[in-house]
Amino acid sequence: MTIQEEAHRMKLASPLMAASSAEERNRALAEIRDALTGHKKEIFDANRADLARADADAVSDSVKKRLRFDEKKLSSVLAGIDQVMSLPDPIGKVLLDRELDQNLELRRVRVPIGVIGVIFEARPDALVQISSLCIKSGNCAILKGGRETKETNRILFSIIKDAAVRAGLPASCLYQAEAHSEIDELLQCDRDVDLLIPRGSNAFVRYIMDHTRIPVMGHADGVCHTYVDRDADQDAALRILVDAKTQYAAACNATETVLIDRAIAGYFLPKLSRAFREEGVRVRGNQESLEALKKADFLLAEDPLMQDEDYHKEYLDLVASVKLVDGVKEAVSHINRFGSHHTDAILTENDRTAAYFLQMVDSAGVYRNCSTRFADGFRYGFGAEVGISTSKLHARGPVGMEGLMTYKYELIGHGQIVGDYADGKASFHFRDLI
Amino acid sequence: MTIQEEAHRMKLASPLMAASSAEERNRALAEIRDALTGHKKEIFDANRADLARADADAVSDSVKKRLRFDEKKLSSVLAGIDQVMSLPDPIGKVLLDRELDQNLELRRVRVPIGVIGVIFEARPDALVQISSLCIKSGNCAILKGGRETKETNRILFSIIKDAAVRAGLPASCLYQAEAHSEIDELLQCDRDVDLLIPRGSNAFVRYIMDHTRIPVMGHADGVCHTYVDRDADQDAALRILVDAKTQYAAACNATETVLIDRAIAGYFLPKLSRAFREEGVRVRGNQESLEALKKADFLLAEDPLMQDEDYHKEYLDLVASVKLVDGVKEAVSHINRFGSHHTDAILTENDRTAAYFLQMVDSAGVYRNCSTRFADGFRYGFGAEVGISTSKLHARGPVGMEGLMTYKYELIGHGQIVGDYADGKASFHFRDLI
Repeated sequence: MTIQEEAHRMKLASPLMAASSAEERNRALAEIRDALTGHKKEIFDANRADLARADADAVSDSVKKRLRFDEKKLSSVLAGIDQVMSLPDPIGKVLLDRELDQNLELRRVRVPIGVIGVIFEARPDALVQISSLCIKSGNCAILKGGRETKETNRILFSIIKDAAVRAGLPASCLYQAEAHSEIDELLQCDRDVDLLIPRGSNAFVRYIMDHTRIPVMGHADGVCHTYVDRDADQDAALRILVDAKTQYAAACNATETVLIDRAIAGYFLPKLSRAFREEGVRVRGNQESLEALKKADFLLAEDPLMQDEDYHKEYLDLVASVKLVDGVKEAVSHINRFGSHHTDAILTENDRTAAYFLQMVDSAGVYRNCSTRFADGFRYGFGAEVGISTSKLHARGPVGMEGLMTYKYELIGHGQIVGDYADGKASFHFRDLI
Repeated sequence: MTIQEEAHRMKLASPLMAASSAEERNRALAEIRDALTGHKKEIFDANRADLARADADAVSDSVKKRLRFDEKKLSSVLAGIDQVMSLPDPIGKVLLDRELDQNLELRRVRVPIGVIGVIFEARPDALVQISSLCIKSGNCAILKGGRETKETNRILFSIIKDAAVRAGLPASCLYQAEAHSEIDELLQCDRDVDLLIPRGSNAFVRYIMDHTRIPVMGHADGVCHTYVDRDADQDAALRILVDAKTQYAAACNATETVLIDRAIAGYFLPKLSRAFREEGVRVRGNQESLEALKKADFLLAEDPLMQDEDYHKEYLDLVASVKLVDGVKEAVSHINRFGSHHTDAILTENDRTAAYFLQMVDSAGVYRNCSTRFADGFRYGFGAEVGISTSKLHARGPVGMEGLMTYKYELIGHGQIVGDYADGKASFHFRDLI
């Protein structure tokens, strides 16, 4: 079957999936948990094959760490399934209940989005996590993982799908795409797929966004800023900047650009240069910053001189752009112009300055006196994360399971027609019942 | 200035607009109301020029009715402004307030989307209504109305914008595009425009959706169904079908396709044929329905024989597609396949059948025993309507002012870094404060 045919079957199955009870969906999750435990030997074997291929391809250690699926990863995904099971049922919640007139009742009811396509990086634990979230939320899902873990994905997927169907969910609740060419086919399925969630590199996400009519949730760039104000607690600022830049430099929420108030640059830069040097952070800057940085003995990156447009750059590495600014106003206009509306922080003890920044920066996350690395669904207490959105529609910032939900309006009448309201024979009284 | 430059200025102004107080925005609305009253003579003069041009172009009476802006329309838009003023301030509402850890507080705060482009039909009252909604919601807006009312639009816009700026709103809060060529320019402004709301014909909305990377809210097709079940109250069904088809046939929420349970077709069709004949409704159908319709003496439309694919058709006229189905299951699968996920109704006294229909039909509105024509923001009690969305993301169905809002996350810390939580030196406790 082609992916178009699969997607169409899934579309037809999606109302059945949405109609499944919370018990059925939790039973499916329990079956999956037990089946993963029962088949762990086959899973680990498959993963060894993937890792052997990675060795042969001389893949880096940091990537191999993500590919590995061992006892520790297994127990972490099992704990994740338990957590998803314990979440309240997202389906059927009545969000609005309004009597429009006597015997004419409007309800806005939460329902699953329907058919979701998720394209994700080579991490076997991601496959388990995404399947669990889609099942719990009553969505059908087409999954496409990275090819570096294809053996592990294949066995994990077959265990998960069998268990879900055994528990009574529709046969078309889940589908795994394996060939890379299927991504382009998936992008054409705009009649049947309701939402795409691509995870991966900027270029990849941008490609998806540019080649489909299906709505896309996610983010391409993560150009996060931390602005150190004249009224910052400078010791705290150093700790925060080191964390925001180095705690996991490849993450989208790592700070890429450090903006420093000119008023304190003379004192602050030598301290920052020592802190960054210790962690191996190399810096770039425009002409003015570069002169200040050189004086303060920073490690310079290759090609350190930046033109204006270079401040759009996301490094995902131990490299930081630096710029001196004239206080919070210039910081805000730099961020709104060069940022990606992901997460941006101000470090200041001044309440008015902070309030201005939080109000004026047009980003999904606006932070005061903490690290941009907090921008994450787990750290926000959402339990499970679907992704991080820099779009302003639907879900913004870290997205939990509610990002996989929409609503429908039910209107229950007793023969009412609009003509009577247009003619003045009847009139609305709009009484909210909840 | 080009529209790109205007859009960019507007983007820079949008945080200021978002920061304006509810008092300022309401004062602007009051100024607009007073200025419209004060300048009504100029407005009516301009409208007469538009109407004279329409006469010269032999525009139809029904269109001219929409173009006309007279005392009656004026008092209706003034009442609309008063209503928008009386709505609660949508900005700044705290949607989530959670202590992640001691002294680390996360807030989800409602904010305007930013810069919105609205392209709307030739109706001067729409210009006033859309401007009021954008001002109240703290959004900057680029407006493009139909060219048939360009003189009226020009004077209305200049009165509205002057009043808004006089009341203290940013100079770039509103912009009117006048040339049709500016629409294509606007579609390119994806760096500065956050949302497009096109209103108008299917083909026009489809064109917008296909030619921009800016998110689009709205609907192209409105293929609404009414299914008459074997357990329907047939007298009520006739009244509802006549209303749903004829009360305003050109509306997107008018019923296009009538599905009839085969079990009652023999009794019901003669009654329906009389009711439709009286209102001038002509029908089309597939081979089987056509034979039944002819027997029952329906008025047939031109080219009455339909192939399967023809059931996607939206008439916006006194024409209905008819199909006989084997009960609710076939009705649901027809609707999910041929509908546009807008609004679909079942007429039945059977609770189980109704529950199945409401659950399984994948549309923004699922109705029981009332007319599809109720799908409308005013009739839902939203006070003001932005449009109707058939997308499943962001807003679905009739969209009130909340469709113009998004949120941002504020995280207020006291020096917290992620490293401490990763190392186990600190841990989250997730305590909701509201």
